Amino acid sequence: MDEKVLEIHKKHTGVLSIKNEIDISDGDDLALAYTPGIAYLSKLIQNQPEKAQEYTVSGKVIAVVTDGSAVLGLGNVGARGGLPIVEGKALIYKCFADVQAFPLCIKQKSVSEFIQTFQNIEYSFAGIHLEDIKAPECFEILTELKKCLDIPVYHDDQEGTAIVVLAGLINAAKLRNTHLRKLKVLINGVGASGLATAKLLKKAGITDMTLVDVNGVLTPDNCLNQFQKSFVEELNGHSTATELKEAIKGQEVFIGLSEGGVLDEGMIDMMADNPIIFALANPVPEIDPRIAKKAGAKIIGTGSSNYPNQINNVLAFPGLFKGLLKGSKKEVSESLQIKVAQTIADFVEEISVDHFIPSVFDEGLAEKIADVVSDFKED
Amino acid sequence: MDEKVLEIHKKHTGVLSIKNEIDISDGDDLALAYTPGIAYLSKLIQNQPEKAQEYTVSGKVIAVVTDGSAVLGLGNVGARGGLPIVEGKALIYKCFADVQAFPLCIKQKSVSEFIQTFQNIEYSFAGIHLEDIKAPECFEILTELKKCLDIPVYHDDQEGTAIVVLAGLINAAKLRNTHLRKLKVLINGVGASGLATAKLLKKAGITDMTLVDVNGVLTPDNCLNQFQKSFVEELNGHSTATELKEAIKGQEVFIGLSEGGVLDEGMIDMMADNPIIFALANPVPEIDPRIAKKAGAKIIGTGSSNYPNQINNVLAFPGLFKGLLKGSKKEVSESLQIKVAQTIADFVEEISVDHFIPSVFDEGLAEKIADVVSDFKED
Repeated sequence: MDEKVLEIHKKHTGVLSIKNEIDISDGDDLALAYTPGIAYLSKLIQNQPEKAQEYTVSGKVIAVVTDGSAVLGLGNVGARGGLPIVEGKALIYKCFADVQAFPLCIKQKSVSEFIQTFQNIEYSFAGIHLEDIKAPECFEILTELKKCLDIPVYHDDQEGTAIVVLAGLINAAKLRNTHLRKLKVLINGVGASGLATAKLLKKAGITDMTLVDVNGVLTPDNCLNQFQKSFVEELNGHSTATELKEAIKGQEVFIGLSEGGVLDEGMIDMMADNPIIFALANPVPEIDPRIAKKAGAKIIGTGSSNYPNQINNVLAFPGLFKGLLKGSKKEVSESLQIKVAQTIADFVEEISVDHFIPSVFDEGLAEKIADVVSDFKED
Repeated sequence: MDEKVLEIHKKHTGVLSIKNEIDISDGDDLALAYTPGIAYLSKLIQNQPEKAQEYTVSGKVIAVVTDGSAVLGLGNVGARGGLPIVEGKALIYKCFADVQAFPLCIKQKSVSEFIQTFQNIEYSFAGIHLEDIKAPECFEILTELKKCLDIPVYHDDQEGTAIVVLAGLINAAKLRNTHLRKLKVLINGVGASGLATAKLLKKAGITDMTLVDVNGVLTPDNCLNQFQKSFVEELNGHSTATELKEAIKGQEVFIGLSEGGVLDEGMIDMMADNPIIFALANPVPEIDPRIAKKAGAKIIGTGSSNYPNQINNVLAFPGLFKGLLKGSKKEVSESLQIKVAQTIADFVEEISVDHFIPSVFDEGLAEKIADVVSDFKED
């Protein structure tokens, strides 16, 4: 496959192109598309700057941005190493939702320089999709950009993952005949995705949640950063164990956003009956779904297309951003994220242990999400 | 025309679009275009960062950038007001030379923030075309970006204008039977374009040059900025008059990069016989070419398509940047600019007073320039 990947990316120098929507065949065309005709439009926008979004590509093209510091399964690949990732995401936007996106990478400097850079060029884009930026920097970058920019800002590793995990969990809870809010949940891996997922599950009503990171079960005393700490301090119920191997005892849900192989049969044995296993690490899941099945788990999702129930961000972001643009919305609030998760969950007509989350190729999913987002109103 | 301009820009939200070069129809496509296939390419680029230019759009898409601070004929229209201008230029790149360009605007902050911003995102682009940034800021921005970025940086108002004026002057000198280097030249308007043109003419061997700006004839004592000053200090010969009205006496060439109507019949009378008049202000030239003709001038160029001999940057930049990309060249040196000017001048098969500069619609011009630039070697 590796040679094929190089071949398709080399053929057109990337997988996207910029095309002209009008031609310039003569002086009349040139006068309309450039000088002197363009002066009228420039003056119009000078007086009503927000009109730029109606008449220039800044109203339709979003930037997909990475600094390459935290690529799933690869770690820090450098700014340029992140370019194929963001171009791939931009391609997905186009193919799955007809959203136009341009891939950008930014050098790894300070958080404040990251924010400053996008403040400076924000008027060029209709929105910003952040991708594969390491924690804890990504928390501050997302929060600050949302605050200081006038366009929607979205971090796929945080918000996208949280949405699709919740979508899966809504249907998994039904399969287990447990009310979503009553689920006893353990999240292993509390980076960008893990923390955002924990927050969204809490917002969705789940109260019993145990967070496990490299230092063991998170308590206010062993957090890696202020973002983990302030969340953990607000949690009501969680395991009093210190290690994953003990904390797993009696849990009804395991959500892995960590690394391959950290969960084994014995640990699944210790969980509550009929546990829900989301082993989402890529490329190698926390536990091979076949082994999880042998250990008695039936409701299993992974991040890979090699197994049933792929819990993949592609389910969420193309439709979500399409809806933001369609509805001229700026905020990707937690309420909106819950609504999108519910929409994804509801898209599966008949749920079963082999099929409780849609396929990314299901026709109409992105359109459906876009409509829901576009029409969404905060309570 | 104004309504038509709005209509064509509104129809597609701008005049450009981002298209996909490959489709994603199934899991196999997704695996190649995104995860897991993309990991191989990311790792390759992590180890050889310069490979990003072979496999991602960063190797073919240039950024056309403005802060909207100095738009020809309009002045400061604000960052967003500049967007239709840079999108128009990007469209011209595509239509005239099949170069892919993305329009960006940057907020008007400090020069150092401008530079920092593009240092941070330079890896996303194959080159940077600067546009309509006011003097003297643009001088420092261009110089510094050329120094600190690894991709070609070009300022159309400076380098593009200098090239096309020189191209016109090469042929105009032939029509006047004067050696280019011997021409006695007055440049009115010493902003970004005027100063860059003066520098390139000097590099091309012209020694007798008088520069006139808002304070009259430039001397080291009345310059508006250090950039004018350091150039004027190096000039060998120029008029000792203080005002345009006196300095024009005996000049063989008038190059106007100033504003409409500053030249009149009486002033042309005072010039040498058979003067060369480039009245390049837009939309209103320094003198109406019909009046200049009545006053005895025969060799006349303007910036407008309404008259013969339109001296327009579109002649230069599409082919120039195509050649830079084709030849993997970074430097837009003055020697290269002279070479491009000569190429444009030579493109007119039979020169006459009515036709001494090519039309922007002449077939093959951009290709010819691209080949010359791509093959260019510094002496």
